[in-house]
Amino acid sequence: MDLESRVERLEAESAIRALKARYLNACDRKDAETVRSCFAPDAVIDFPPLGEFDVDGLIGIFTQMAVSTSIIDSHHGHNAEITINADKAEAVWNLGFATINPEDDSFRLLSGFYTDRYEKRGGQWLITYTRSEPQKIIDGKLEGASVSASLLGEAS
Amino acid sequence: MDLESRVERLEAESAIRALKARYLNACDRKDAETVRSCFAPDAVIDFPPLGEFDVDGLIGIFTQMAVSTSIIDSHHGHNAEITINADKAEAVWNLGFATINPEDDSFRLLSGFYTDRYEKRGGQWLITYTRSEPQKIIDGKLEGASVSASLLGEAS
Amino acid sequence: MDLESRVERLEAESAIRALKARYLNACDRKDAETVRSCFAPDAVIDFPPLGEFDVDGLIGIFTQMAVSTSIIDSHHGHNAEITINADKAEAVWNLGFATINPEDDSFRLLSGFYTDRYEKRGGQWLITYTRSEPQKIIDGKLEGASVSASLLGEAS
Repeated sequence: MDLESRVERLEAESAIRALKARYLNACDRKDAETVRSCFAPDAVIDFPPLGEFDVDGLIGIFTQMAVSTSIIDSHHGHNAEITINADKAEAVWNLGFATINPEDDSFRLLSGFYTDRYEKRGGQWLITYTRSEPQKIIDGKLEGASVSASLLGEAS
Repeated sequence: MDLESRVERLEAESAIRALKARYLNACDRKDAETVRSCFAPDAVIDFPPLGEFDVDGLIGIFTQMAVSTSIIDSHHGHNAEITINADKAEAVWNLGFATINPEDDSFRLLSGFYTDRYEKRGGQWLITYTRSEPQKIIDGKLEGASVSASLLGEAS
Repeated sequence: MDLESRVERLEAESAIRALKARYLNACDRKDAETVRSCFAPDAVIDFPPLGEFDVDGLIGIFTQMAVSTSIIDSHHGHNAEITINADKAEAVWNLGFATINPEDDSFRLLSGFYTDRYEKRGGQWLITYTRSEPQKIIDGKLEGASVSASLLGEAS
């Protein structure tokens, strides 16, 4: 592989790390428009046991479960295994996820794997397929703990 | 952009990832001198609600709250969105933070965003500005759990 | 350093990130063969207080403690400080680890540092030395919490 192709591969990895980070941070910020901008228009989103969605469907469930509620989520992406093949790429990410519902002090901790596919279209890397499979779920109540949770931009 | 400039951009990203890792790991290790070495002398550190600090002020509060106490901290940086513009850069990081106070078995879990600025000075990337905004804080007591916590270099 | 050597250094960092990710994800998946493939045949694995192992020894203890049990583990690598010197490299990683034993609802949370060495042999980066030192351990019981934990490939 010539030097320019090798640099292109490294740039693709950098762009895909930034894309996934932008997606996960936008999930935490409840920023539906930025979430949407991470996906190709024809992307397939497979989130068992919630279901399989197109981009509009994902934005719908995200609005219903996160944007319009007082829950506070943390999405952290770890252990990226990224494989690049010209303008296509695949990745596995290990997700650490925590959510709190301040209404009833319930929480959920989740760990699992993302299996993603990406494509570079018009010079921009986009998610074309993502599957998130929970590996471990813990549900509980924050009894005896005090919680202070607020979204950025609100009083903290 | 010519190939050398593209390689320089990738090197800058690599250096900034290493710089943030060095800072976060030094926080866990209570290594004040390494923490100091990550910052430009004129850096601004904005840690609401603790306050805004210069580097001496940061080392002062770090010494008071961490180095001189028996608390055990974990600082983990996630979801880096890094933007490089020649010898300046910006980044957002999603922080996972946990602390335990072995004196009273209290703990704090925190998730939030760092907004950082960096500059390359004398060939070395340094933090010139960092703001850490908690998004989610959980305080509680480790009742019913047994804790074994020790700093590296001590008996573990 | 000429441009090709600089690209090689960046490629080495990319490969080491992928190697560590593959190792940690294989630990979660209880995939002993992939775990084995991450190590040089003469690798030294130092996991105090468990002990020091060669690769066969590691696979033995991994099979005994993880593969043959119903425990569910999360291994997440953070804050990588990677130093590359031609075909050798060193790294520090900050580990976030959680395990649950569904048999008795016990859990362990652990944070600590990996100190790794790597070598490129036959074109492939491998772990030649790894030491994992726990910095913080919390043991407890999931009383009052409901747990749903299953490995990928099983019903979830």
